Amino acid sequence: MSIEVSILGCNSALPTSERHPSAQIVTLSGRTFLIDCGEGTQFMLRRMKVNFMRISHVFISHLHGDHVFGLLGLISTMSLLNRKARLEIFAHPKLEELMRPHLDFFCDRLTYEVVFRPLQTDGTHVIYSDKALSVESIALKHRLPTCGFVFRESRRRPNMRKDAIARYGLGISDIARILEGCEYKDSEGNTVDRSLLLTEAPEPASYAYCSDTQYMPDLAGRLRGVDTLYHEATFADDQAALAKATMHSTARQAATVARDAGVRRLLIGHYSSRYHDTDLLRDEARSVFADTIAVADGMRISIG
Amino acid sequence: MSIEVSILGCNSALPTSERHPSAQIVTLSGRTFLIDCGEGTQFMLRRMKVNFMRISHVFISHLHGDHVFGLLGLISTMSLLNRKARLEIFAHPKLEELMRPHLDFFCDRLTYEVVFRPLQTDGTHVIYSDKALSVESIALKHRLPTCGFVFRESRRRPNMRKDAIARYGLGISDIARILEGCEYKDSEGNTVDRSLLLTEAPEPASYAYCSDTQYMPDLAGRLRGVDTLYHEATFADDQAALAKATMHSTARQAATVARDAGVRRLLIGHYSSRYHDTDLLRDEARSVFADTIAVADGMRISIG
Repeated sequence: MSIEVSILGCNSALPTSERHPSAQIVTLSGRTFLIDCGEGTQFMLRRMKVNFMRISHVFISHLHGDHVFGLLGLISTMSLLNRKARLEIFAHPKLEELMRPHLDFFCDRLTYEVVFRPLQTDGTHVIYSDKALSVESIALKHRLPTCGFVFRESRRRPNMRKDAIARYGLGISDIARILEGCEYKDSEGNTVDRSLLLTEAPEPASYAYCSDTQYMPDLAGRLRGVDTLYHEATFADDQAALAKATMHSTARQAATVARDAGVRRLLIGHYSSRYHDTDLLRDEARSVFADTIAVADGMRISIG
Repeated sequence: MSIEVSILGCNSALPTSERHPSAQIVTLSGRTFLIDCGEGTQFMLRRMKVNFMRISHVFISHLHGDHVFGLLGLISTMSLLNRKARLEIFAHPKLEELMRPHLDFFCDRLTYEVVFRPLQTDGTHVIYSDKALSVESIALKHRLPTCGFVFRESRRRPNMRKDAIARYGLGISDIARILEGCEYKDSEGNTVDRSLLLTEAPEPASYAYCSDTQYMPDLAGRLRGVDTLYHEATFADDQAALAKATMHSTARQAATVARDAGVRRLLIGHYSSRYHDTDLLRDEARSVFADTIAVADGMRISIG
């Protein structure tokens, strides 16, 4: 299993004809999560052939329009398609206050329940977990309360080696004990090395979404062990002052966080519309952290 | 001069990957008007290279989401682009009540004024006029209060014939009197026929937008003299019962209105997403009214 990230939109506030505002789909073990929901998210879901009725949870990083203006249309469309399953939306509590009157008016015969879960936007909190994964919110620094989200696949138990079952004549109870971590001794009473009995599962995949935020040197420490990091890179070096003033990051700063956190790969996005071509941003990031991808709408990335 | 209509979206409530929900631009004499504003309107404006900062007035037919969910994003983008000119939105008064808290929160530093003008959704009312055109609202019948809009270019005054100026030796005061409609007598005292003095301006262009509505046999009488009619055609004959139940029209009903009103041309749109190909709808309409165009996103139509 692995995490798959689908980029529905990777532009900042002013959309271009090529790039939609922020939205991503994260899938893992048959689960489908949506991060942010800028205007046009439902069109991009269709274009990327994502079965959006399977989205169970939505994670909204912060309440700027380019991260939420697609939510009402998506909720409405799901109802027109006769969705029955509950939809949970993690967001700053202000979002529910703003959206309820609109849901009551525009979606007055909603076929399913929409539940808002208030986010705490300070510190780090596990906000969702099931047997396959957990999701943490992680405080970012932007012009209003903002969270990143870290998706961590659960560590899976190792698999029994088929050759070991035959070699040692293992029964069901032997296998259960070995999988629980007990020692196994062969017929001569010698402890058998675990590696002869079990194939370890691959390292759990993990993905962190950090947008929008100013450069946070201390963010790296909280991203240790993350495989792939999406970090906003609204500006290139030429606009470093504007990045600071608007509490956004440059591509180089995003790469610095990736390098300091020791992640395997960096994805950058949330580009200012002034950058028609994102090669400049990618190259500036790569000068600090080589394994950088400048994402584009419609891109799919496998993690783990 | 003529009216130009740009189709930004022509689908009904459930958008497809090919068709956006309702939105159109009407331009006339340098003025730019937006009718309806479904989600994604601002992307289509960019794709069609419409200078959307020139939009001065927005006309919202009714408060179903597929006609308004793009408004907040568009207003926000105009502010990010530092618009200064006032934007007037004609809509049912409920829209202002719903949108004000969102404008206050998401667009708290709006660079321009947004003024809501309440629509009366019964009868016919002139809601806008200047020297070049007038706009009338016209009551439609849908599941909630709904208006169509009729754009009528003003009748322009005739032009003096240059050959007449030379032939009769006309001075400025003669020309002014003739243009005001006074008789002109030649040097022998004979009244000169107007057609020898003046070239009449072409018939004023006119355009009616009627969506959403059930079939209204009496609508035709109120559309007399209209050149081009856009009438919703959500369904084909196969779904006539559903059209009735949902207070929409079939393509054949749209064409019946066009025929009975004596318009020159019919545009149909607001298609149900079940019709991937709109040829069926077009052909059913043409069986009643030959000069029918089934519009598509991105299409431009000149009127007059």
